[in-house]
Amino acid sequence: MSKDKSYHMTPDEFRQAGRAVVDWIADYYERIESLPVLSQVQPGQIRASLPPLPPPQGELFGTILSDVEDLILPGITHWQSPNFFAFFPANASGPAILGELLSAGLGVQGMLWATSPACTELETHVLDWVAGMLDLPAKFKSDGTGGGVILEAASSASLCALLAARERASGHQSNERGCDGRLVAYASSQTHSSVEKAAMIAGIGRENLRQIEVDNHFAMCPDALARQIECDRQAGLVPFYVCATVGSTSSNAIDPVAEIGGICRQEDLWLHVDAAMSGTAALCPEFRHIHDGLEIAASYCFNPHKWMFTNVDCTCFYVAQRAALIQALSILPEYLRNEASESGAVFDYRDWQIPLGRRFRALKLWFVIRHYGVEGLRYHVRRHVELAQEFATWVDEHEQFELAVPPPLNLVCFRHVAGDTFNQRLLEQLNSSGDLYMTHTKLGGEYTLRFCVGQTNTEVHHVQQAWQRIQQVASRLESQA
Amino acid sequence: MSKDKSYHMTPDEFRQAGRAVVDWIADYYERIESLPVLSQVQPGQIRASLPPLPPPQGELFGTILSDVEDLILPGITHWQSPNFFAFFPANASGPAILGELLSAGLGVQGMLWATSPACTELETHVLDWVAGMLDLPAKFKSDGTGGGVILEAASSASLCALLAARERASGHQSNERGCDGRLVAYASSQTHSSVEKAAMIAGIGRENLRQIEVDNHFAMCPDALARQIECDRQAGLVPFYVCATVGSTSSNAIDPVAEIGGICRQEDLWLHVDAAMSGTAALCPEFRHIHDGLEIAASYCFNPHKWMFTNVDCTCFYVAQRAALIQALSILPEYLRNEASESGAVFDYRDWQIPLGRRFRALKLWFVIRHYGVEGLRYHVRRHVELAQEFATWVDEHEQFELAVPPPLNLVCFRHVAGDTFNQRLLEQLNSSGDLYMTHTKLGGEYTLRFCVGQTNTEVHHVQQAWQRIQQVASRLESQA
Repeated sequence: MSKDKSYHMTPDEFRQAGRAVVDWIADYYERIESLPVLSQVQPGQIRASLPPLPPPQGELFGTILSDVEDLILPGITHWQSPNFFAFFPANASGPAILGELLSAGLGVQGMLWATSPACTELETHVLDWVAGMLDLPAKFKSDGTGGGVILEAASSASLCALLAARERASGHQSNERGCDGRLVAYASSQTHSSVEKAAMIAGIGRENLRQIEVDNHFAMCPDALARQIECDRQAGLVPFYVCATVGSTSSNAIDPVAEIGGICRQEDLWLHVDAAMSGTAALCPEFRHIHDGLEIAASYCFNPHKWMFTNVDCTCFYVAQRAALIQALSILPEYLRNEASESGAVFDYRDWQIPLGRRFRALKLWFVIRHYGVEGLRYHVRRHVELAQEFATWVDEHEQFELAVPPPLNLVCFRHVAGDTFNQRLLEQLNSSGDLYMTHTKLGGEYTLRFCVGQTNTEVHHVQQAWQRIQQVASRLESQA
Repeated sequence: MSKDKSYHMTPDEFRQAGRAVVDWIADYYERIESLPVLSQVQPGQIRASLPPLPPPQGELFGTILSDVEDLILPGITHWQSPNFFAFFPANASGPAILGELLSAGLGVQGMLWATSPACTELETHVLDWVAGMLDLPAKFKSDGTGGGVILEAASSASLCALLAARERASGHQSNERGCDGRLVAYASSQTHSSVEKAAMIAGIGRENLRQIEVDNHFAMCPDALARQIECDRQAGLVPFYVCATVGSTSSNAIDPVAEIGGICRQEDLWLHVDAAMSGTAALCPEFRHIHDGLEIAASYCFNPHKWMFTNVDCTCFYVAQRAALIQALSILPEYLRNEASESGAVFDYRDWQIPLGRRFRALKLWFVIRHYGVEGLRYHVRRHVELAQEFATWVDEHEQFELAVPPPLNLVCFRHVAGDTFNQRLLEQLNSSGDLYMTHTKLGGEYTLRFCVGQTNTEVHHVQQAWQRIQQVASRLESQA
């Protein structure tokens, strides 16, 4: 509701309401540890508190904001809590939040270069920065044949890469005539489910995605990949795409990219490397070995919205040959034609992604890099890895707990020795306490707890407290057994 | 850069920087009319002003914000200017901007109900509100077999609908085995290019998307659709999906949904209705005829981020049978399993979309509806339609200009009688003046100017000024001829 008879917020009302929201957020971060990390509401509880019909007349902004506090907050799982160790971090930060605010304020839609040149050029530029910061192969930078783009998710990157590979392998016929059922893609059994989903979406079919076996560290076995490719070729099928993972979702396993790449080069397959969370580690020279072999990859992605303080959504997707991607995804109707596009001197990022429209996401990434500097980002990556390694040491030294695998970076996979049911109950009790939030996976068939360190404000005492709580709850469960 | 040795912004630094950004945005809206609507920079100009390397150490927030002013602003095409009449509006508003800010502050990732119940439940609830506000068929609400979800773009909605239809038509085999090249989709020759892109992505192939002819108002001819389906069936192909458009991108043409729906019912085809911009008009009872026949559709989408004051991105996508959508898009790896999902009592919106991750986009839509109330939103829709209709009257009465088609709502397609080259030069000169921004299309082979009214702060005098400028520039060009 507004005093302005047009119903709009006036600039002054916006200033006032904006300050209230900024303050609410600052307060939120100051009290976040007092809130249960995993929301404790029951299904339907939030909806039941909302009015069944929308308001016929506008309401005061203060009313809306106090409803956020009363009606919404109980249904929030606090991803930004320093006690969040679940899934992966989606670590936000002050500069990223304000970059998102500014992007919303400018309200530009960057589908074409012309619809806001800065939206495209800042994105290209910052992605070149990031390629340098991670020491990625030069071919992924925009000054050659490649370049980077910001997508909404790593799953979208896997799909875009798959589509570019499909189009290439089909002699540019799959966009015209559809799939023919002969193309075969490869990933490990530990690859993120989004690659399977991409194979479904792209009309490849999940039967045609081979799940290659993994070694005892859950990394893809290159020999098994080579054998499967050979077998598929003999069956008259057409291998075309391999997704290698740097830091798998379940256990942070790192596929041997160099060996897989050698096979891809020999077999002329598109190699996509998914480093969704772990890619960030390459900010630090001492962790760059995770990218060994990347120079062979046709495409690569990682998510600053996981572990680089940049709010969801911000996936950096790089290709070595941007022409291959654009050829797979471009369509040019009359109403989008414009001089700049036709000159060939600009990128139109709509041709690098699934949807047409796009927000100005480069702003928040630019803000983050400038606020922290490369030094500040490295500091935090090192700190998170150190904290996770320390946690792993405690687990390893405890008689009743064991590591499922040695943790390569910031994700520790472990379990109590008492078996699946015990671990499941342990996790349920920890999460329902609200003190911390962890998730699980299965490794080698065994129920395994995942402890992922990377939240913006997680400090050593949060990790210590978490370990104490884990031991306490485990002891209580042991005594009940 | 931060005084905090951890490099993070402290809550107090965030309060201060946040106010600065809020004020910058308020100032921006106060001076937006002094800026050229279409950015006047040359390709590469923005990048050339940016440092080649990222900063090793962090920088002050004030420095970053002043670089936004100096380095970024010249490269912005001002979608929020009241003189923006191009493409479609992407009309932002105060409450939407602050909803986006709050979403960024909370930093939740709503892939599963459990990862923030409020993110899912507010979305379901507000989409039910919106269905009621537009008087959509009851089957699209969540209390039956249907429901709504927020996607990033109408192009994603077309794709999701196509995938659900593909899976259904293939007897649930296309996800498993891939496409078989026999499925055929239908849209009009005026349908948005994203449907063609969806056919490419989904492995259908654009040769298998039939572009059905249109009538002299550029709406799909149902007879031609019926004939083509018959023809394809006789050829042994499998018709499966029709996309009807309510308000085409080129000219706002409204396909006869009821007649198309009758054919789809008879032929058992999935009917998706794309009302990307125009759907908003149904807020007003007097415009609801645009949705006549919608009760037959299997899915529907419109974009509050076009014409309902909700920042990009916010596409409302509804399905009548959510099970069909979920079956097409769901995958359940161990690491996403949880009690709430397995109870069946909740929606996990990751299964309603292409990517896995998702932001809390319902907040901004909720803020907008509550701030304006249904009454305020209707007021603006009526005003925009009235302004466009008035503009059309001026065009119609002018000897040198003509309407390409009678404008049904807020988009006027018109041209100068002097032909394509003249109109092209007219548009170039208008846009390069920075006074206003319009775009073009081709209708019936003729170069046509598009004047779309819907920016948040567009008033009658902006429309008047635009018309004066158009006439002035045309006169000058006429005198040069």
